[in-house]
Amino acid sequence: MNTLGKTRAGSSAAAKPRATTAKTPRNNRQSAEAKLAELKCRLLEIDDLVAAGAVLGWDHATYMPKGGASARARQGATLSRLAHEKLTDPAVGKLLDGLTSYASGLPHDSDDASLLRIARRDFEKAIKLPTDYVARASALGSASYDAWTRARPANDFASMVPFLEKAVELSREYADFFAPYQHVADPLIDAAEEGMTTASIRSLFAELRHELHPIVRATSDQPGPSDDCLRGSFGEQAQLDFSLSVIKSFGYDIDRGRIDKTHHPFCSKFSAGDVRITTRVDEKHFGDALFSAMHECGHALYEQGVAAALEGTPLGSGTSAGVHESQSRLWENVVGRSRPFWEQFYPVLRDTFPHQFRQTAFETFYRAINKVQRSLIRTDADEVTYNLHIMMRFDLELDLLEGLLRVKDLPEAWRARMQADLGLLPADDRDGCLQDVHWYGGTVGGGFQSYTIGNILSAQVFDAATKTHADIPREIAKGEFGTLHRWLREQLYQHGRKFQPNDLVVRATGAPMSTKPYLDYLRVKYGELYRLPAIESGHTP
Amino acid sequence: MNTLGKTRAGSSAAAKPRATTAKTPRNNRQSAEAKLAELKCRLLEIDDLVAAGAVLGWDHATYMPKGGASARARQGATLSRLAHEKLTDPAVGKLLDGLTSYASGLPHDSDDASLLRIARRDFEKAIKLPTDYVARASALGSASYDAWTRARPANDFASMVPFLEKAVELSREYADFFAPYQHVADPLIDAAEEGMTTASIRSLFAELRHELHPIVRATSDQPGPSDDCLRGSFGEQAQLDFSLSVIKSFGYDIDRGRIDKTHHPFCSKFSAGDVRITTRVDEKHFGDALFSAMHECGHALYEQGVAAALEGTPLGSGTSAGVHESQSRLWENVVGRSRPFWEQFYPVLRDTFPHQFRQTAFETFYRAINKVQRSLIRTDADEVTYNLHIMMRFDLELDLLEGLLRVKDLPEAWRARMQADLGLLPADDRDGCLQDVHWYGGTVGGGFQSYTIGNILSAQVFDAATKTHADIPREIAKGEFGTLHRWLREQLYQHGRKFQPNDLVVRATGAPMSTKPYLDYLRVKYGELYRLPAIESGHTP
Repeated sequence: MNTLGKTRAGSSAAAKPRATTAKTPRNNRQSAEAKLAELKCRLLEIDDLVAAGAVLGWDHATYMPKGGASARARQGATLSRLAHEKLTDPAVGKLLDGLTSYASGLPHDSDDASLLRIARRDFEKAIKLPTDYVARASALGSASYDAWTRARPANDFASMVPFLEKAVELSREYADFFAPYQHVADPLIDAAEEGMTTASIRSLFAELRHELHPIVRATSDQPGPSDDCLRGSFGEQAQLDFSLSVIKSFGYDIDRGRIDKTHHPFCSKFSAGDVRITTRVDEKHFGDALFSAMHECGHALYEQGVAAALEGTPLGSGTSAGVHESQSRLWENVVGRSRPFWEQFYPVLRDTFPHQFRQTAFETFYRAINKVQRSLIRTDADEVTYNLHIMMRFDLELDLLEGLLRVKDLPEAWRARMQADLGLLPADDRDGCLQDVHWYGGTVGGGFQSYTIGNILSAQVFDAATKTHADIPREIAKGEFGTLHRWLREQLYQHGRKFQPNDLVVRATGAPMSTKPYLDYLRVKYGELYRLPAIESGHTP
Repeated sequence: MNTLGKTRAGSSAAAKPRATTAKTPRNNRQSAEAKLAELKCRLLEIDDLVAAGAVLGWDHATYMPKGGASARARQGATLSRLAHEKLTDPAVGKLLDGLTSYASGLPHDSDDASLLRIARRDFEKAIKLPTDYVARASALGSASYDAWTRARPANDFASMVPFLEKAVELSREYADFFAPYQHVADPLIDAAEEGMTTASIRSLFAELRHELHPIVRATSDQPGPSDDCLRGSFGEQAQLDFSLSVIKSFGYDIDRGRIDKTHHPFCSKFSAGDVRITTRVDEKHFGDALFSAMHECGHALYEQGVAAALEGTPLGSGTSAGVHESQSRLWENVVGRSRPFWEQFYPVLRDTFPHQFRQTAFETFYRAINKVQRSLIRTDADEVTYNLHIMMRFDLELDLLEGLLRVKDLPEAWRARMQADLGLLPADDRDGCLQDVHWYGGTVGGGFQSYTIGNILSAQVFDAATKTHADIPREIAKGEFGTLHRWLREQLYQHGRKFQPNDLVVRATGAPMSTKPYLDYLRVKYGELYRLPAIESGHTP
């Protein structure tokens, strides 16, 4: 069969957004409904374009042959540009204006009021970005990413300098579209974490750093447990099967998703019925495949849990990068590296790899997967030291944006901070300032803070869940996750983007974001693991 | 990593089509060049949308979880609709008009003259279809296809009657957009095979039928060879590996493609650097996986062979469904079921499945894969009887379009024709008029004739290649396909859509389409296989 020469129409109905037909306002109510229907139709078309772009991106990262790269980059950019054009169509603004009074008569939390609020926000942001800028940023992102995939293995930072300089410049330009601002990084941060600013994150991180250092010292300065048991021979299919069985027990609906292999695991949503995750497998090491799968499963549970009514609207996805990351870290770490979880699953794992874990006691395994160790690579870092990697990147990107640090001096600044914060010196830039893709994807600023916000919130959210349902840890120890999953769906997932991140956190946990539950979590868990006396605590809020 | 909350631009440059800037025709030549550049930019954007739709379709048929179906249908239709809107933009017509005199000064076969010719043709066709019609046809196609996937296993033709009635109606409506016509099927046929008509195909098929019947009788009326050796246990991975090694030896560039499993094999092109094929594997039967892979490889070699300069333009794909099918059938049958081919590959196959083919002599295997047998299912039919299935469907769809046959009477008409043409009666509609997806995809007419045109051309093209390069069969017997592949690339593939199907056939083979080489091919091959006396021949042109 040859599907190359399609001659006629596509495969389904796609109503075209129409000009409003109700010219005579016979009835204001009816007219508002017609406008709302047209707005939703336009937003659905934009959602379709974004989803199609996501499919192209997923395919790029999983199955695309290398010959497809250049055309694929252009095709993805065309979809992005069209989505941007559709969103910034003046007709969208006119519809939003025409619905202002209608919206004010609706309950604030109703789906329609929320839709109009968020659509307005997206529209106002989008119209500040000229299409010309979007095209230039896309071009840089693609070229810089391609260059980075060659530069990192070659340890060739010099070749990335012009790209990174351009990225700093374009990121400043982005910020300027949203002037005035207090700090040049504020608009970039707001894009990821609505309501947060450079100042609020600096203050959060300062407090966290102050409290983290004693924990880092107390754990990683003593001879750590051995993690030798995680090294050996672990067949790929068995690792994937085990990972799948775990995430299915978490509640991941495989009829509305799938798991594939990739280099850098991610979660991607094409619709409420198709939320996919990816992982990677090292046959010589147990852990990465499973913990990556759990992590991406957390993102996927969030997306699969958004209320069906919000599907295809701007409300139909998670509310912020940080809240999203809280769910990946909750399922990966707070649940997936916990003692109760492994009480249930270690026997299953031993059945899966009887030869490899025959000699390994439960306690040895549990300590191995929770070993604290200062290390060079962020993505390999343990729960305790991970945030040090993030905070260092956050500071460096602020320095780049402020012009306090020149791009060419980045490797040296990186080494100095690694030495100061983690007591380690990378042997080269490959394991230094070239290790993360973020800046080399064309954006400097706004990308890193969400990981640490996610860590902080993961504990706060789990704490709130267990305060409501004290049985959750006991259920986890029986391999049951229904109560936790249900609570998360009700408190967080179902709302999509209806609420601002901070509002959602207050609704779900009864308090604004706080480092206390997270620090308590670390102190209790690692205090027990490392048999520590009570770790000196600062003055957490 | 969470890619759900993308906050900024996409991943590559995608220049927006711009309004022509050269307002003052300082210089006609320059102005034409600017217009041509803008036209190409607009056409590239359309190509990107079509390619993105193809990725969505490929994913649908390979990896998509079932939960994704409804949103995916809508997303694909949105891309189809946008591509249609972009192509029918009056600005495209204005650019084409403005380039008429420029085009007339170019050599007819030049890339630019061809581009303007084909773009004009596509534009003129597209503007005849109202967007409203495209949306209705899409809606029917999707709903009907979904219903068919349930109706066929349930043998429930009755449930398909309303869909099929609607499909007949919409197909007539399509034809009417292209009125006047001699026959209502003409516009549908022209969409697949430019330059052909109902009358020309009827005449071609009448002649072919006349010549085929003696061959069918002479082969399938005698006790056939056994094909038991193809049944047994053939591991999926080994079948896929063997298939891949064969198509790579044909010249399929796996760096610009890949092979995946699906239910109904197809070939799909996303760019010159990404042309994928699919196959299906039956572990209890050897053959389907390999011959499907060879077949789709033929389509893929065509697409991979289009000249790089035509990439992203309306010239950048094969010229017609029939010429495309000639390449799939050439590689699958004329090469892939030939004696020389298996002289090289049967020993390799025996090494792959030593246990299964240990007792099977070469001749037994060769006869098994070329066994002629009247059968119920088109896709399982051998080379000789296959065309009877096609001609019967062609006649039935003309009757439906002309109103001579009512949809509800189709099952009875099908049985009557099966009895008359193949001497068989299907036990039910599942293996009768419900077996092929084509009509249930929403279009009746224009879909089936290309298979037989492909068969006819496959022999004519191969005959021309061997007349130029007499060594080709000897090279095939050594597992070398370079001379054949090169000749096909030079004579056919590189030209994309530059030439009309008939012109291309004349250029490549020195003559218009003729059934003679195909009938000669069948007579020689099956005469030898079935040890027949010279089969009575009619008056082929």
